[in-house]
Amino acid sequence: MNIGIYGYGNLGKGVEAAVMTNPDMKLFGIFTRRAPESVKTLYNTKVYPADEILKYKDEIDVLIICGGSATDLPKMTPALAENFNAVDSFDTHANIAEHFENVDKSAKSGGKLALISCGWDPGMFSLARFYAGAILPNGNDYTFWGRGVSQGHSDAIRRIKGVLDARQYTVPVESAVMRVRNQENPTLTTREKHTRECYVVAEEGADLKRIEEEIKTMPNYFADYDTTVTFITKEELERDHKGIPHGGSVLRSGKTGKNLENNHVIEYSLKLDSNPEFTASVLCAFARGVYKMHQRGETGAITVFDVAPRDISPKDPLTLMKTLL
Amino acid sequence: MNIGIYGYGNLGKGVEAAVMTNPDMKLFGIFTRRAPESVKTLYNTKVYPADEILKYKDEIDVLIICGGSATDLPKMTPALAENFNAVDSFDTHANIAEHFENVDKSAKSGGKLALISCGWDPGMFSLARFYAGAILPNGNDYTFWGRGVSQGHSDAIRRIKGVLDARQYTVPVESAVMRVRNQENPTLTTREKHTRECYVVAEEGADLKRIEEEIKTMPNYFADYDTTVTFITKEELERDHKGIPHGGSVLRSGKTGKNLENNHVIEYSLKLDSNPEFTASVLCAFARGVYKMHQRGETGAITVFDVAPRDISPKDPLTLMKTLL
Repeated sequence: MNIGIYGYGNLGKGVEAAVMTNPDMKLFGIFTRRAPESVKTLYNTKVYPADEILKYKDEIDVLIICGGSATDLPKMTPALAENFNAVDSFDTHANIAEHFENVDKSAKSGGKLALISCGWDPGMFSLARFYAGAILPNGNDYTFWGRGVSQGHSDAIRRIKGVLDARQYTVPVESAVMRVRNQENPTLTTREKHTRECYVVAEEGADLKRIEEEIKTMPNYFADYDTTVTFITKEELERDHKGIPHGGSVLRSGKTGKNLENNHVIEYSLKLDSNPEFTASVLCAFARGVYKMHQRGETGAITVFDVAPRDISPKDPLTLMKTLL
Repeated sequence: MNIGIYGYGNLGKGVEAAVMTNPDMKLFGIFTRRAPESVKTLYNTKVYPADEILKYKDEIDVLIICGGSATDLPKMTPALAENFNAVDSFDTHANIAEHFENVDKSAKSGGKLALISCGWDPGMFSLARFYAGAILPNGNDYTFWGRGVSQGHSDAIRRIKGVLDARQYTVPVESAVMRVRNQENPTLTTREKHTRECYVVAEEGADLKRIEEEIKTMPNYFADYDTTVTFITKEELERDHKGIPHGGSVLRSGKTGKNLENNHVIEYSLKLDSNPEFTASVLCAFARGVYKMHQRGETGAITVFDVAPRDISPKDPLTLMKTLL
């Protein structure tokens, strides 16, 4: 199947690498809004101007749209899904239903199939919450993120006067995770679930005390958390904080039995060296599902909940049964 | 939807309790090969003789078959699937493909749908292995079981001369699990992955040294493991080893990136107070899937890989999207 990549940032690069590890996939090319000749790809993949994509409508089986959720995807996916089977990683949880409706309308009118909000959260974490909740209707869900880099929080620090660069790590409170694992069913406040670690490069002569205060009191981002601020040099940031690791855990603690006397804990957890490359790997597997489902005549918008597992694997049912069941 | 239970041991009791927690399900009744009047149920559920089940063919939407994998299910499921949509927990991994074929033939000839090998392993652990492998094609799988009671190993000890009762726990070697979590990709022998703890009640005057030796050298069951044997009284067994806990972890360690330079670990783990009640909860959720898929016209045998997640939930797509995605 021929895969197209639309948008070539960290996620697009991750998809380029992931396609190479899936022998049943071929990379048609990368579409960018930048000047194509200015884009250096990992594998000398062909680069096309984004606004010429309609020319290749019949040559691309699934388009993986690698834009940002804030402003790109709400426009891109509905616009592209009329002419292409598509997968995106739209992750603004509050607006998913609206995005779904827009994409559904456009994909249906073009006879295409589009999977929205794929990746790990939303995506694999959603599936973990979903399966666990369907199995244990009496129970509580807990999601912990990290230890990992939050791009949004890092950006928020960079906007503070006197800050040159910053990296923010979201860190789950280990004792809170342990209480859930130990079946205590705790009620946890925001502060009890995560802490925030900030590594900041300040301008020479900047008022460090003021910067630290501005970070720690920033509403929504930091005020509700125990936040630590550590000032480091540009070199230290480059050396020690170059990666984009992430991960986390989804837990469900539930009860069964006549008197609900038995406790069970289901945990799904991820420990990722590269957030964008792992997300890209999930997008690729589900692109296979979109391709197969569209071949069977399905159109419109779907989510990970709509994809039967067998459709995302390149293996035949008998092999799956013998090796993985 | 009307659920029937066929077979009323620990698993059947678990299903009886699980149906009560699913408001969209009704329990039609329990079918047993014992004298119905001798069976005491948890909720005064109606009990029918197993050999009269065909009378109720049109009143049962899905039959959950709660027999053993060694001798019951290979006969029961093919026999019943011709007239009933069915779910079973057949767990003899080596014979799954053969069982699938037998059930498929029978279900297709009767226009019914039957899901085989459901539960947690095979079942949820299979799904965990499946999704992780589809996402990270370059990687290794690890499955650890326990800490939990193995019925088969407990039975093997009970067959030794001089043994009155026994309970065997399968215990994962924590240091091996940690090596996988730490992305070491180790090659692990049987002995390095699990230990076996045996609690044995011996007859008065029995030769304890001989019993311990017979356990530790038993081929397939114990010889390849570090096994400990502890002799206890009947009262201690009753007091300290009454439960049927189990659990374990499925891990996949995989690599991404142009030079496979980034490591990722996906872990799915279960900590279960009651193995049969949790298994029963999984069977119930998937019984819902079988019901919905059969309503859409699907027939034959299927596995958990064939069921789209949304079909096992009682919630509508919009609620799922807004609350779990």
